[in-house]
Amino acid sequence: MTGLFEKHRNLLADAVKAIEERGFWSAFSEVPRSYGETLPAEGKAAFEALIEKPFALDQEADDGRVGGEVSPFGRALGITYPRTGIDRLIARASASAADWARASVEVRCGVALEIITRLNKVSFLMAHAVEQTTGQAFAMAFQAGGPHAQDRALEAVAYAYREMTSIPQGDVAWDKPAGRNVIRLTKEFHIVPRGVGLVIACATFPTWNSYPALFADVVTGNPVIVKPHPAVILPLAITVKIAREVLMEAGFDADVVQLAVDMPEAPVAPTLAVHPAVALVDFTGSSEFGGWLREHVRGKPVFTEETGINTIVIDSADDFAAMCQNIAFSLSLYSGQMCTTPQDIFVPQGGIETNDGHKSFDEVAAGIAAAVDGLLADPQRAAAVCGAIQNPATLDRVGKATGLGRVVRASAPVGGLENGRTATPLILAVEASEAAYLKEQFGPISFVVSCEDATDAIDRATHAARAKGGITAALYSRDADLIDKAVGLYAQAGVPLSVNLTGGIYVNQSAAFSDFHVTGANPAGNACLTDTAYVAQRFRVVCVRRPAAA
Amino acid sequence: MTGLFEKHRNLLADAVKAIEERGFWSAFSEVPRSYGETLPAEGKAAFEALIEKPFALDQEADDGRVGGEVSPFGRALGITYPRTGIDRLIARASASAADWARASVEVRCGVALEIITRLNKVSFLMAHAVEQTTGQAFAMAFQAGGPHAQDRALEAVAYAYREMTSIPQGDVAWDKPAGRNVIRLTKEFHIVPRGVGLVIACATFPTWNSYPALFADVVTGNPVIVKPHPAVILPLAITVKIAREVLMEAGFDADVVQLAVDMPEAPVAPTLAVHPAVALVDFTGSSEFGGWLREHVRGKPVFTEETGINTIVIDSADDFAAMCQNIAFSLSLYSGQMCTTPQDIFVPQGGIETNDGHKSFDEVAAGIAAAVDGLLADPQRAAAVCGAIQNPATLDRVGKATGLGRVVRASAPVGGLENGRTATPLILAVEASEAAYLKEQFGPISFVVSCEDATDAIDRATHAARAKGGITAALYSRDADLIDKAVGLYAQAGVPLSVNLTGGIYVNQSAAFSDFHVTGANPAGNACLTDTAYVAQRFRVVCVRRPAAA
Repeated sequence: MTGLFEKHRNLLADAVKAIEERGFWSAFSEVPRSYGETLPAEGKAAFEALIEKPFALDQEADDGRVGGEVSPFGRALGITYPRTGIDRLIARASASAADWARASVEVRCGVALEIITRLNKVSFLMAHAVEQTTGQAFAMAFQAGGPHAQDRALEAVAYAYREMTSIPQGDVAWDKPAGRNVIRLTKEFHIVPRGVGLVIACATFPTWNSYPALFADVVTGNPVIVKPHPAVILPLAITVKIAREVLMEAGFDADVVQLAVDMPEAPVAPTLAVHPAVALVDFTGSSEFGGWLREHVRGKPVFTEETGINTIVIDSADDFAAMCQNIAFSLSLYSGQMCTTPQDIFVPQGGIETNDGHKSFDEVAAGIAAAVDGLLADPQRAAAVCGAIQNPATLDRVGKATGLGRVVRASAPVGGLENGRTATPLILAVEASEAAYLKEQFGPISFVVSCEDATDAIDRATHAARAKGGITAALYSRDADLIDKAVGLYAQAGVPLSVNLTGGIYVNQSAAFSDFHVTGANPAGNACLTDTAYVAQRFRVVCVRRPAAA
Repeated sequence: MTGLFEKHRNLLADAVKAIEERGFWSAFSEVPRSYGETLPAEGKAAFEALIEKPFALDQEADDGRVGGEVSPFGRALGITYPRTGIDRLIARASASAADWARASVEVRCGVALEIITRLNKVSFLMAHAVEQTTGQAFAMAFQAGGPHAQDRALEAVAYAYREMTSIPQGDVAWDKPAGRNVIRLTKEFHIVPRGVGLVIACATFPTWNSYPALFADVVTGNPVIVKPHPAVILPLAITVKIAREVLMEAGFDADVVQLAVDMPEAPVAPTLAVHPAVALVDFTGSSEFGGWLREHVRGKPVFTEETGINTIVIDSADDFAAMCQNIAFSLSLYSGQMCTTPQDIFVPQGGIETNDGHKSFDEVAAGIAAAVDGLLADPQRAAAVCGAIQNPATLDRVGKATGLGRVVRASAPVGGLENGRTATPLILAVEASEAAYLKEQFGPISFVVSCEDATDAIDRATHAARAKGGITAALYSRDADLIDKAVGLYAQAGVPLSVNLTGGIYVNQSAAFSDFHVTGANPAGNACLTDTAYVAQRFRVVCVRRPAAA
């Protein structure tokens, strides 16, 4: 029964070491060519074989089949999925719970690690599935949908494993001196799961954002119901299918992991979230539904990653061109649809000092805009950076946003993707006194905001994080004292800070095993991927004590 | 600045080792005579010096002085305390926060450990304060109010210290291979407190139940407002006074720890709990107010220890007399006013097998009643075991409960305490079909419940824990298979189980560093003293990353 644990023991040990050190570490290569020559074609073929067919998921479908995914690149996928009604989902999850709870920590972790490594083997299939549902360009869909998501899954398993094994396993002797005698008890500490976990995934990073919760729930002994966004089902259907296969092979009820598909007009997440049998709720998505969950779901942990306003403050620059290029890439990547994409760029009204001399406010804004133009000049590269727009509402928002400020750079379709729903970054210049930039404008919309000076800029950036939430923040400055002071202010605002990034590392990137994603310390979310608080609430410990055998 | 940490380094290291092993360990002796010959008299004198005087607490009192404590043993204490209004409490806590947040983990832990060890030095003063407010007998007031509470405080510090120091301190190198290059970042991980902590204490164990929250909040960097029960202020006033003295000596704002006294007719806890500046709420007390807090306090962690129905199941007994004596002590200790006191004793209607032959249902009930009579026959011992009744409503409840079943043992005043509000255990026999025993009857009220058989008894006991909450459960059986099966059922019900306790260890005792008090897995509370989940939510981590210096 612990064969899978033995098989993956070293991987887990390395992961536990990585979360303790939090330097660079990755279990799964992000470089497609390191996967050999045959996997890319096999992945593509496996994806094409799914198109226009019922998805083969061995799960009771008492409510027919549904599915209406249309690729943001233009193609209707025509895949249908078995729909299981809420009562059956709960009944089946509950029925699977006792055996899974009884399995040892090692057995549960072994199963989880086997699922994760099998997911790694289908990373190319997953890349196509993520690309054709989220609109991510293929390179990002491969990395973020595959190895990076698998790393985040492994990270959650490592945290949960470390936490559960910090509870003594086996008998503990409790020998209390009492005068000339000793009172001797034997104690056992039972790790007890909470109940059914509900994982509500988002439409942009369906695997990366849901795997930590899915795997944290599973290894702590809780059956999981995975509720994908109705527009982005396939990546999680593949995930659930593999999870169920591994569970069955290991002798468990496959219903420890179930898929809950729904349609936009009949959402199941609210009903599931408040169901008494559901003991844990994880959600990634809009603050609107996040707020609903935080308001209505009582008496059980609710973990959210919601949205906010990410900021950049530019005080001065050591390498103006490299800074503009770095920011341009951050704004363009996946057309600004990352929860980590900067929205507001605060620049002193009097301009900034740089290696290239003084730059006025307008020159800074124009420099960023020109860098975006340069980055996206080649249509193929533009397509590979921007991808497509997942949600039609995002494209509408870009159109409407044009009036929210002075257009520094107009949005346009991505040249290389004629059939797709696309938009390059819209960049607007505004005064600090205007209000539009203080509202989240999800998508390729950003504001260059004119501030009094760097202090005012930092003040506005940290205030935005405190008031509206923030998942990332960036600062460019040559002033070591100002940076030092800023570090404390951003920490107080609960938002991670990236300072003077140039070259091949971007503020929107969050690395498993090193970066804590979302701090939980501002309104952008109440949970963090992944820290101890994220896993420790998913199980409880019950002690049994009895007189020690004489 | 880290002098206090150095002073207490070994103590903390021992405590961290203890939470990892969870065998017997205690930092502070529970044996009064081990404290030397002078401390008892000094403690008594220190207590008497407080009577009928304004309590000298150096805290802004913008709302006059209040206080109306009357000892359950009869004496009005006549002590008044400075009352600080809600706005000032919040303003002062907030003003103290930044410096305290900036202090290192070691500095904060050093201050906390100094407070705890100074509390240990006033354990006799504390014993009198706890005795004369809660009604506990002196021996219990000394142990539970002093060293046991200090152990629980230290335990929380150890958990928080371990958790905070599991985050890398200092610079972490993140070197990511990127083709032939390496991307090099330097990362720092900042531990960021959540905000102001509110600790709402109870009237029966004011220190034991509040210290874990108080010290967990403090060491994780959160200023704390301590809200004692209006009938039991003194133990926490002494605690807060010592905390403030240590904070000031260490160069911090004393308002990191404040006392919030109120009057029953003008409670401040609800207003404080929902105040936006309050980020953490801890509560020990009734399920009624616990439920209010869980319902109304949003967007911040709420940790509760509420109430429930504790049970004993008797299947059979190896030593009938010893079992009855053990149960008798558990029912009598502090007149059943412990959150761990058993209420329902489930016995098969056909009786049980024992070392002393078959005992009918009535014989079991009579055996327990007789053991209580025996234990309390000597008035001095009765006083030392039962103490007094903290709340007049509890005494009323005992009077009204007489009609809830067939009286097996009537309650009576405690002979040795003529001036006090006292009551010995009321024991009632009921059928399983009756309803009264399924409602919490706080105080010296218990039911011997006639069940079909042991399986039915365990089923009813675990169901009570799941439905109404349970903090303790006990089982007596000679059947190893039945015990094994029961262990799994009680674990599923989230209630700790004590099996076959006889001699000097009782189901109502919960030992720091070993027993997890309240599992958080049933309605008796959502938090546990102390596990990782209890501390890990009290701070957040914010990462700052920048290019590594070349």
